[in-house]
Amino acid sequence: MRPYERDPAAIYAASFATVRREARLERFPRGLDRLAERVIHACGMVDVADRLAFSDGAFEAGAAALLSGAPVLCDCEMVAAGVIRRLLPRGNDVVVTLNDPGVPGLAAELGTTRSAAAVELWKDRLAGAVVAVGNAPTALFHLMERLDAGWPKPAIILGFPVGFVGAAESKAELAADPRGCEFVALRGRRGGSAMASAAVNALAIGQAEGRA
Amino acid sequence: MRPYERDPAAIYAASFATVRREARLERFPRGLDRLAERVIHACGMVDVADRLAFSDGAFEAGAAALLSGAPVLCDCEMVAAGVIRRLLPRGNDVVVTLNDPGVPGLAAELGTTRSAAAVELWKDRLAGAVVAVGNAPTALFHLMERLDAGWPKPAIILGFPVGFVGAAESKAELAADPRGCEFVALRGRRGGSAMASAAVNALAIGQAEGRA
Repeated sequence: MRPYERDPAAIYAASFATVRREARLERFPRGLDRLAERVIHACGMVDVADRLAFSDGAFEAGAAALLSGAPVLCDCEMVAAGVIRRLLPRGNDVVVTLNDPGVPGLAAELGTTRSAAAVELWKDRLAGAVVAVGNAPTALFHLMERLDAGWPKPAIILGFPVGFVGAAESKAELAADPRGCEFVALRGRRGGSAMASAAVNALAIGQAEGRA
Repeated sequence: MRPYERDPAAIYAASFATVRREARLERFPRGLDRLAERVIHACGMVDVADRLAFSDGAFEAGAAALLSGAPVLCDCEMVAAGVIRRLLPRGNDVVVTLNDPGVPGLAAELGTTRSAAAVELWKDRLAGAVVAVGNAPTALFHLMERLDAGWPKPAIILGFPVGFVGAAESKAELAADPRGCEFVALRGRRGGSAMASAAVNALAIGQAEGRA
């Protein structure tokens, strides 16, 4: 077998050097360029940089929310598993309501998916929160409907639902009308938990670096 | 906001219909075609079908391993979080050793990454296991080194490490010489936890369907 790199610091440095060499990052405001790098690093595709939609103040808003102790509301366990807890500046709560015992009944009652019904349980913690959607388009759609109905606004919505039904549409809707929230979203079918948690981690790392 | 599909069964059906319509699945043996569909469903990219390497008996071997009660050994928590427990036919253990307290010391001692060192702790459970690597190329490299040194063989290796340093190389090495194991691997930089756990879930679902 050929030799391979075993040094974690060297792997990390070489990975991000490749991302910076290959990705088109010029159009991103400071902070969001680092977020884009981490999303790319999580998926192995430099061209996702070209498909990221965002609001200009997204990075600052997300980093400030974490610093203020805001919770991270995730649509599934995989997103939560990818959030690097030691980076969070205030031991912020990482919340997943999808497997709450009340969710299946709520989904039936509302005539929607469990992922969408789980969003109902975010209401009390939504004001100023960091929302990370890495799986379900219906979670993002449902959140936007509730925001339209006057629910408290999160500080930032990280929109990375993935797949063939509703993913592209939900992210296009978010980018077209972010409901007064800051946002980052990957246009199209691609997305996923790893990208969503990478975006959260980028907000946390940016915070740590900003204070260093 | 435009109407969107809220019915989980309709979403599921439409998603897989799109995958089957767009992906080139003809070359896959039975069972692996379904695995390819689930990997595609997890990432939103139909062209990954064209980059999947596999051994012809991989599906049967993986499904049989799960039915025999074999553990699922994962390189990170995100892969484990994506394995749908209720599908596993024997309440199979889903094992992640990465955060074992002994791992950092072991990594330092071996001069490698924590992900590679975590593989050391798989040895006693490796014979006949389902291995799912969804993050770290060094975990896959390290496993192959140990297999070369005579370690017990897993039933199947699901190789989906992602990124810019070693991911493509580790999967090419696995495909070139799978060390007598059955395998599925996504060539190139792309990969990730969602694809790795989708592959595990496909083996479990195939098992359930085969028995239905």
